[in-house]
Amino acid sequence: MTLTQPGGQMPTPSAGDIHDGEHRLPLRVYYEDTDAGGVVYHANYLRFFERARTELFPLIGIGEIAALANEGFTYVVTNAEIHYRRGAKLGDVLTISSSLAEKPRGARCVVKHRVIRDGEVLVEARVSLALIGRDGRPRAQPKQWIEAFAAVTGAESQV
Amino acid sequence: MTLTQPGGQMPTPSAGDIHDGEHRLPLRVYYEDTDAGGVVYHANYLRFFERARTELFPLIGIGEIAALANEGFTYVVTNAEIHYRRGAKLGDVLTISSSLAEKPRGARCVVKHRVIRDGEVLVEARVSLALIGRDGRPRAQPKQWIEAFAAVTGAESQV
Amino acid sequence: MTLTQPGGQMPTPSAGDIHDGEHRLPLRVYYEDTDAGGVVYHANYLRFFERARTELFPLIGIGEIAALANEGFTYVVTNAEIHYRRGAKLGDVLTISSSLAEKPRGARCVVKHRVIRDGEVLVEARVSLALIGRDGRPRAQPKQWIEAFAAVTGAESQV
Amino acid sequence: MTLTQPGGQMPTPSAGDIHDGEHRLPLRVYYEDTDAGGVVYHANYLRFFERARTELFPLIGIGEIAALANEGFTYVVTNAEIHYRRGAKLGDVLTISSSLAEKPRGARCVVKHRVIRDGEVLVEARVSLALIGRDGRPRAQPKQWIEAFAAVTGAESQV
Repeated sequence: MTLTQPGGQMPTPSAGDIHDGEHRLPLRVYYEDTDAGGVVYHANYLRFFERARTELFPLIGIGEIAALANEGFTYVVTNAEIHYRRGAKLGDVLTISSSLAEKPRGARCVVKHRVIRDGEVLVEARVSLALIGRDGRPRAQPKQWIEAFAAVTGAESQV
Repeated sequence: MTLTQPGGQMPTPSAGDIHDGEHRLPLRVYYEDTDAGGVVYHANYLRFFERARTELFPLIGIGEIAALANEGFTYVVTNAEIHYRRGAKLGDVLTISSSLAEKPRGARCVVKHRVIRDGEVLVEARVSLALIGRDGRPRAQPKQWIEAFAAVTGAESQV
Repeated sequence: MTLTQPGGQMPTPSAGDIHDGEHRLPLRVYYEDTDAGGVVYHANYLRFFERARTELFPLIGIGEIAALANEGFTYVVTNAEIHYRRGAKLGDVLTISSSLAEKPRGARCVVKHRVIRDGEVLVEARVSLALIGRDGRPRAQPKQWIEAFAAVTGAESQV
Repeated sequence: MTLTQPGGQMPTPSAGDIHDGEHRLPLRVYYEDTDAGGVVYHANYLRFFERARTELFPLIGIGEIAALANEGFTYVVTNAEIHYRRGAKLGDVLTISSSLAEKPRGARCVVKHRVIRDGEVLVEARVSLALIGRDGRPRAQPKQWIEAFAAVTGAESQV
């Protein structure tokens, strides 16, 4: 079953933007994100961070999904440290801010994430990634990717 | 901890748009949405539909979250029928299309959802909602809400 | 890093049991299952049903995961109808009851699920499955599998 | 709609056991837990840990859900550090091992979790909790609760 496009251009999902060395992804808190405590379930912030990286990487020219298809390269999370200050609520509009926590080296890349609501930081995290090949072994990140990360190495997180 | 806004206006999440009596919410398929079968986990389409309704309702003037806070009014899902034709994959950009399946009456409102990828319908569903009060009992939908739904009663689903 | 087993036999997860032509899987409602409405998020019942089928199939001799590894056979959900009567709450102990809704035929198999709390049915569903091969095409269910399903064709659902 | 119990006693969910100062919760990896990479989605281990704590607390006499209902006391996660070594796969049977990482003090309690498959540690974590009251403010843990935690202060994690 195929539809003729009902009209004009379809809306597109927000990929966020890059500002001052930081990627900013906006999102709204839905029922699915919350728990019976009335706030976002703590594990779900890791989902928000992964959404942010998925949007960020192609924006700066890192074609992770393409690389996965062609050469089997993909990033896996090796470590995560999350500090929860305050819970986000149903209906909140959040910004997930992402930048490099340190200069990428070898297979390793460390991303610093913040969950921001109205200028207040609710949650902070450092997520370490390793680039691996189809065999699950670490691979050195391509030189162009390492250079590409300079776009999200903000003043604050510069090393 | 409060941040000075790092620059200009923050990006905002997409609320989708309304076209020809249909609401269209764009979204991207992330790792969190998929399962080891390589496609979107079948339960997650219900999450996509609820995201769509959450964006749609305020767009047409139905203030569900406000009503929940003030009078305890909220919609609950009473019935869902989902027909899966084909699985969406990691990285896909989908449109969740939503319109009224029938004229709302009393506490009841039936929404028809479609998951569309490049003009192909992957999944179709009818989700029935009931408006309930703080006591969990059904409440007649306000007349203005019923009128507001006319905006998403497309040609195809008109009654 | 390998541990010497710290002591005796590890506990095992409950696979439920089969009684009177019905499979019964017990589970507890955790924070992750609930939403800000204080009840189980409606999409999550589909997860509970899939857990139940995953435990049920090997119990009656249907080796789906093995078949997936060897021949690429797997069941996919093609249709789901869910009727929500009442919401389960944080900490509730639920029984997911599963039985065949009709005699399996060709690639198709329809499972009837019920969510039961203290003898009360909270949610009812019919989930249709199709057996597919590695190419995504329907495959006739092996004769032994069809016979195996007799174990969960209860009096009520007999055909 | 109420069912006569179809037969005998319903099966019950596994609450795990306590052995050598460690709580061990068994669980099976379902499709819902995995992602398109073929392994458990990294955020979901935090869900496994929370399931483990939910089973562990009443086992040692800490009635968190009762306290929540009566006095509004509940534990919230304030910090999590997760180290991923290897991914769990669809169908794996895992043991979530939990013990105290340090002596609880004031409102604070730190739990060490491990995900074990066939004696191999796949994931390790430290999750810090704070007991809060209905107003969201930290509350000193009752003396009996602190004593109760001695049951899961294993040799290795003793302080």
